[in-house]
Amino acid sequence: MFTDFGHQGPYMGQMEAVLAGLAPGIPSVRLLCDAPAFDARASAYLLAALTAPFPADTVFLCVVDPGVGSPRRPLIMKADGRWYVGPDNGLLAIAARHASGGEWWEITWRPEHLSTSFHGRDLFAPVAAMLATGTMPEAAPCVPEAGVDWPDDLAEVIYVDAYGNLFTGLRAERMPAGADVEIAGHRPVRTRTFSDARPGELLWYANAHGLVEIAANQGSAAETLGAGVGTQLSIAPSA
Amino acid sequence: MFTDFGHQGPYMGQMEAVLAGLAPGIPSVRLLCDAPAFDARASAYLLAALTAPFPADTVFLCVVDPGVGSPRRPLIMKADGRWYVGPDNGLLAIAARHASGGEWWEITWRPEHLSTSFHGRDLFAPVAAMLATGTMPEAAPCVPEAGVDWPDDLAEVIYVDAYGNLFTGLRAERMPAGADVEIAGHRPVRTRTFSDARPGELLWYANAHGLVEIAANQGSAAETLGAGVGTQLSIAPSA
Amino acid sequence: MFTDFGHQGPYMGQMEAVLAGLAPGIPSVRLLCDAPAFDARASAYLLAALTAPFPADTVFLCVVDPGVGSPRRPLIMKADGRWYVGPDNGLLAIAARHASGGEWWEITWRPEHLSTSFHGRDLFAPVAAMLATGTMPEAAPCVPEAGVDWPDDLAEVIYVDAYGNLFTGLRAERMPAGADVEIAGHRPVRTRTFSDARPGELLWYANAHGLVEIAANQGSAAETLGAGVGTQLSIAPSA
Repeated sequence: MFTDFGHQGPYMGQMEAVLAGLAPGIPSVRLLCDAPAFDARASAYLLAALTAPFPADTVFLCVVDPGVGSPRRPLIMKADGRWYVGPDNGLLAIAARHASGGEWWEITWRPEHLSTSFHGRDLFAPVAAMLATGTMPEAAPCVPEAGVDWPDDLAEVIYVDAYGNLFTGLRAERMPAGADVEIAGHRPVRTRTFSDARPGELLWYANAHGLVEIAANQGSAAETLGAGVGTQLSIAPSA
Repeated sequence: MFTDFGHQGPYMGQMEAVLAGLAPGIPSVRLLCDAPAFDARASAYLLAALTAPFPADTVFLCVVDPGVGSPRRPLIMKADGRWYVGPDNGLLAIAARHASGGEWWEITWRPEHLSTSFHGRDLFAPVAAMLATGTMPEAAPCVPEAGVDWPDDLAEVIYVDAYGNLFTGLRAERMPAGADVEIAGHRPVRTRTFSDARPGELLWYANAHGLVEIAANQGSAAETLGAGVGTQLSIAPSA
Repeated sequence: MFTDFGHQGPYMGQMEAVLAGLAPGIPSVRLLCDAPAFDARASAYLLAALTAPFPADTVFLCVVDPGVGSPRRPLIMKADGRWYVGPDNGLLAIAARHASGGEWWEITWRPEHLSTSFHGRDLFAPVAAMLATGTMPEAAPCVPEAGVDWPDDLAEVIYVDAYGNLFTGLRAERMPAGADVEIAGHRPVRTRTFSDARPGELLWYANAHGLVEIAANQGSAAETLGAGVGTQLSIAPSA
């Protein structure tokens, strides 16, 4: 499960209960529950990075869905053998792009009761459970509408973790050799890991998710830079 | 599991570990961990709403228990085939009422070691595990003491979610046709869903749990109204 | 799982996914995710208390690891039949001491890909999964380096829960008969449980984890005393 619901409230628990009921014996995991709220674009880059290492046949239930209740379409996407279920708002677009392309379906199956505000529980979770148990729900091949014009890598902060570390939408392996990043007037030093920088010093490194991450050793890069989701970076030749 | 423990600390994890140990192979779900703290009355209406959709034989481990360590009785309640385990403080009363009545037992089984402060882990969780595995623990039919004088529907805010949406104790299907709600001097517009209101506008609608919910489109109703758990509503003829 | 990661971010979810993938059918539990951050010493006393009640063959994945990326060694420890996996920074030391001693191994197994910043996911979780499925990973008997000079019981606050209750590193069963504790100039009254004190009154009691806990009935001891992790206590003869 990849959502912007947070752990508070009944939202994650109700989705989990649906999965446990319809896909018994198949474990479900709260992979990330604090994706950038209502922000399908930043979330799309985070989803791509976090799900790339998973094996084929894993099913990802993806709900960052500010348009719930509007006519945006519900989608299934398959990429490199992995399955994604979520809304047609671009959330799944980058995961498809970073894989060797995606196959897309519009979900035409509907549950007996569909609330107006919680398709995660009523529509997406049952579909994810069907896929996890090897059943393809009623769906029609389609072309996704949203996210198609987004870049392959995004030179912006896409997530701030609890320590104030700034994840960017840049894949570290795609960074030009010798290049540096510039953010909010600073040029963080490039290191292999946190402890290679001086206490408090700003650094960037390839994080455990394969992304360029801006951090401050024993400090908060978010505070130091006054940065958050959406803060832009530029890639600069090394000084 | 339905509790007011929050996810912080060892409380949920220890209960989960008891369930995993005593009811192996049976999935457990953190349905809600931030029920109104120490507030069995508001929690009772929330519990009734959240658990009504579950199938028979589901077991609910319910711990909102400010009286732990005092002589309040531990209970089992069965309603429409669903099982509830929790303290005799009214927490289970509304779930029984909204079903076709409840059967009640006082739990007389006691664990080898019962702490004074954590009956959720030491008493209620093992009992829930027994019920989940088809074993009735030692218990005696009884009549519950608390909550019997509470109304079927509660015209108060019973929960505030992370977005500032206000759940009420009113079942939407029981609202008189054409009626409106009034709260803190405001009369929110009735809509089918969030996006039917203007940005910032106060609305009420039947939420995904079947309750009347007060919300502000793209805003926080809790902040706009200065409202929280316990804020009263009145039902007014439509203007 | 016992960590200082918090529930935010992808950290717990990614570890859980590794466990679900490599140890299918074996339940994993988030026992505690808010251990004192970067504080292996306070966490060691908490880990010992929380894990002591578990049966043999339970595997504990323990990650409070400020030295990740530095050369500190990864360890396996076995005590009273329970398995612990974590860094050699003292985190596992007290659990071994409170049991009838521990057997220690340095983990020499390495994964194909080891990130510099997330050994919890890449190294410790796969090792925990191996142990849970009955496989001993490549490892060499060793003597732990850290934590060996720490006392058996720690007269300090080691954890503050969401209610402001102060857990100490003192096992209640080891307290001299009739002794009292003194903290921040106060001498809390000794009680059997919360409700034995007057509202707001400071108390200490043997908590559900077997530790001396300082609390305020219906209040926050942390606020009342201005105390937090690391605040020292002294044991005083009863007045």
